[in-house]
Amino acid sequence: MYPLDLDVAYPRNHWFVAGHPHEFGREIVAKRIFDEPLVLFRTEAGEPVVLSARCVHRHMPLDTATREGDTIACPYHGYRYEKDGRCSQIPTGGIPPKSARLRRYPVVEHGPFVWIWMGAEENADPALLPRPAEMGLNDGATGWRHDISKTFPLQARATLLVDNLFDLSHIAFSHAKSLPMPKHELMIEPRLETVDGRLRVTRAASGPNAPDSFWKFVWPHVDGPVVRELITEMHTPGLINAAQWLYEMQPDGSKGASLGYADFVHVLTPETAHSTHYIGIISRNFRQDDDAFSALLVENQDLVRSEDVFVLESIERDVDRFGNSRREISTKADEGAIKIRNLLRQMIKTEQAAVPMAAQ
Amino acid sequence: MYPLDLDVAYPRNHWFVAGHPHEFGREIVAKRIFDEPLVLFRTEAGEPVVLSARCVHRHMPLDTATREGDTIACPYHGYRYEKDGRCSQIPTGGIPPKSARLRRYPVVEHGPFVWIWMGAEENADPALLPRPAEMGLNDGATGWRHDISKTFPLQARATLLVDNLFDLSHIAFSHAKSLPMPKHELMIEPRLETVDGRLRVTRAASGPNAPDSFWKFVWPHVDGPVVRELITEMHTPGLINAAQWLYEMQPDGSKGASLGYADFVHVLTPETAHSTHYIGIISRNFRQDDDAFSALLVENQDLVRSEDVFVLESIERDVDRFGNSRREISTKADEGAIKIRNLLRQMIKTEQAAVPMAAQ
Amino acid sequence: MYPLDLDVAYPRNHWFVAGHPHEFGREIVAKRIFDEPLVLFRTEAGEPVVLSARCVHRHMPLDTATREGDTIACPYHGYRYEKDGRCSQIPTGGIPPKSARLRRYPVVEHGPFVWIWMGAEENADPALLPRPAEMGLNDGATGWRHDISKTFPLQARATLLVDNLFDLSHIAFSHAKSLPMPKHELMIEPRLETVDGRLRVTRAASGPNAPDSFWKFVWPHVDGPVVRELITEMHTPGLINAAQWLYEMQPDGSKGASLGYADFVHVLTPETAHSTHYIGIISRNFRQDDDAFSALLVENQDLVRSEDVFVLESIERDVDRFGNSRREISTKADEGAIKIRNLLRQMIKTEQAAVPMAAQ
Repeated sequence: MYPLDLDVAYPRNHWFVAGHPHEFGREIVAKRIFDEPLVLFRTEAGEPVVLSARCVHRHMPLDTATREGDTIACPYHGYRYEKDGRCSQIPTGGIPPKSARLRRYPVVEHGPFVWIWMGAEENADPALLPRPAEMGLNDGATGWRHDISKTFPLQARATLLVDNLFDLSHIAFSHAKSLPMPKHELMIEPRLETVDGRLRVTRAASGPNAPDSFWKFVWPHVDGPVVRELITEMHTPGLINAAQWLYEMQPDGSKGASLGYADFVHVLTPETAHSTHYIGIISRNFRQDDDAFSALLVENQDLVRSEDVFVLESIERDVDRFGNSRREISTKADEGAIKIRNLLRQMIKTEQAAVPMAAQ
Repeated sequence: MYPLDLDVAYPRNHWFVAGHPHEFGREIVAKRIFDEPLVLFRTEAGEPVVLSARCVHRHMPLDTATREGDTIACPYHGYRYEKDGRCSQIPTGGIPPKSARLRRYPVVEHGPFVWIWMGAEENADPALLPRPAEMGLNDGATGWRHDISKTFPLQARATLLVDNLFDLSHIAFSHAKSLPMPKHELMIEPRLETVDGRLRVTRAASGPNAPDSFWKFVWPHVDGPVVRELITEMHTPGLINAAQWLYEMQPDGSKGASLGYADFVHVLTPETAHSTHYIGIISRNFRQDDDAFSALLVENQDLVRSEDVFVLESIERDVDRFGNSRREISTKADEGAIKIRNLLRQMIKTEQAAVPMAAQ
Repeated sequence: MYPLDLDVAYPRNHWFVAGHPHEFGREIVAKRIFDEPLVLFRTEAGEPVVLSARCVHRHMPLDTATREGDTIACPYHGYRYEKDGRCSQIPTGGIPPKSARLRRYPVVEHGPFVWIWMGAEENADPALLPRPAEMGLNDGATGWRHDISKTFPLQARATLLVDNLFDLSHIAFSHAKSLPMPKHELMIEPRLETVDGRLRVTRAASGPNAPDSFWKFVWPHVDGPVVRELITEMHTPGLINAAQWLYEMQPDGSKGASLGYADFVHVLTPETAHSTHYIGIISRNFRQDDDAFSALLVENQDLVRSEDVFVLESIERDVDRFGNSRREISTKADEGAIKIRNLLRQMIKTEQAAVPMAAQ
């Protein structure tokens, strides 16, 4: 499958966002993640639950199941399931066999989301969850604020979004109006480095303030010569931070004191091999009490992401017609995206080596 | 193909309902049965005719053919066909070769329907048609009345409907409101027996009248302790009777004189491997002159069947994604449905052994 | 693939109509031909250009590319292409490699259309373009006039349209009202001959004027006994002329002086293996100044062709379900169509022998 040239679309042995906390209520909600039909609900004690959504008896989808207490019952013959997926009652009698269970997926409420583990359950280590800081969610007391923007039902494979975020040179074209980028900055060669074991791609720019650029929108109060950095980092395959950092410029051109940080966090959860649940978070450490400014940021970010959705869906629609038969031209600017592709490919291969297909 | 694990979806060497008599008129009607495009019409003498609907010349669909007398002509180059399917005229001249014929399917007007034989013609024995009593159509003089309800264009394979009818425990869940069934009756173990060479599955219940149950709706006048039986029988793969029989209860709890019979006949004709023409008949031997009661029964039956349509279409939509790779849990209550599956599977295998694939 | 029984749907080493001259403007237009996504535009100097519509970098469709001068830029990362397809600029820097080029298709403005060569570029010989006379486009000075009718987005493979035009006996049925043909003319055996190396199929009829036939509509002033000829000729796989020629009848029944010619030119360009861009031209050498008569001809021709579209789309929808497993009945009247099928088949085989698959 383009672009990874593997049968599997994306690594799954990671925490992904299953949804917003409010999606986990007492009413059953249906969702598809990694092509698995799932039901989401919350127990009386407030615990979020995700179960596979097909009855073990006759494959009835459970999205119209009825909930009673913390159990759900199939709308066809009434097979009842506990919150751990175990079938506890077959209405026509008999003790449900041990194999009668829905797959229960580990879920954790963490930060502003509920996270799910779609891989082998024994690997579902909460220590692997992105830390709040990685989501831009530094504690409010230290001066950060975050706003969550729209969930796009992106009709494109997750890897296309990863490509997009690891080559920010597209900003000058796809987002020419919503996110103006001085064209000369395109020539700045991205810096690749490994930070905390993760690939970090930085586009660093210095020079006089560019009044009509996006960072002017973000930092209208900054007026002198500055050093700016666009930094993309994948914290997990389901969370990529494309941050903008701004510094005073030292007389020798190097970066001085921070003028502010803004994190544009991209949350992606594969729905199928060809579609992705796509949420955004905007986080900043300045003007954190300015609600009107927040609203402007969210509005702009939704516009920017809708432009990406247009591009990625255009590619998705046609890319399978040619498979991997058509060569791509890549240059220096694609280095980050290609490194991340290799990383994802390696993750998938490791998963395939560890887990026999049937057990996935 | 789920659930039979064979390439062929359903046995075809049987009579199936092709349609209502009024569908066979002087105007050509198009219909698909067993994935064959067909045209239906009626001759001047009143004989119903079904022919395959693709011209032998250049494959033009014949649903827009023009009828003249008892012949039909292709709308493309005017090839003309007799009611037996034989091409009798090629407008550009020449004697049509013997091989120039549309397949003509044996049809018989019988009971309230026109029946078709989709298998090898030489096996089309009218003696194999369901007898009137099997359709619930005992002659009016003996006190029976029948009403025909809606034709559903069920977007699900016929076998799912068979499964449904042979495990009536679903009544308590899928039809919780339209057809209330006391939950304790779920524990009654169905009785399987062979009657006239056919599998009969009976759920027998005795005890005080249950005022809110469906049989109370059917038999409001009955008030004492009774013995009730829900009996499912497949008369042919295209006709399943799910009857309700009611008896006085003897002092020893056994069944006494009949209080009434109601047949809920389910008529199913595969349209494709994934869809089914689905008609209902309701038949009863009491209150046969009460038209308002008939209307109520039909209305209720259409509601009940629409609930089944919802369930079966939900399963159909998703079941092929998993093929036969996913195991099912079955219990005692599924015994009838599993026996019927085996029977259908055996019928298909017998057909495959007898008829070379190419000749089907 | 029906009806040619080859993997490839249609020969491509020929000139096909890419579109009307007005479709080639300064705005980019997207079109699919032979299943290739293409962009069309016109240079400042007025030269029509067709390029493949997928960026060499990350497969972004170029139908929303921006044009600047005679270059177009990908809306994703701004890769810029010259009118010859060569990538001339990668905004992030570096010299584009030689392999970074969009396929440029040879196009020629010729007669009333822009023509494209989809086969190997070295074979794109303008001498192979249909001559104006073959399109019915004799120079106005000699008394001809042509009118172009509607472009149908025909949802059927091109070969079905070829079949249609080489067996005009369908006129009596598909066009029974719009283009009446005396039924007795159906018995006239078509004459097959080779003219200028091309197959010509002629239906010649003589006898008294038939007042309600189409040619009466075309030649209302002609009243005596005449000789009429319906002549179908494929000039290229993308252009078929179905002409009507009318002559005075000599006392011995043979044809005398011409009373007029009308060309009904059918222009077909495969869009995909299952759809075709379908344009008509009507050309005549009489009443060439009568605009109202032209309007009537165009209106009638659009109606006639819409009837063909109905027939061909009906066949297309179903024909793949049976593949080549179902035999066709053919007679003397099909000889022309069968010869043309063989010719197309031979063209494809020659192309396959000459061009390795990968290079197509």
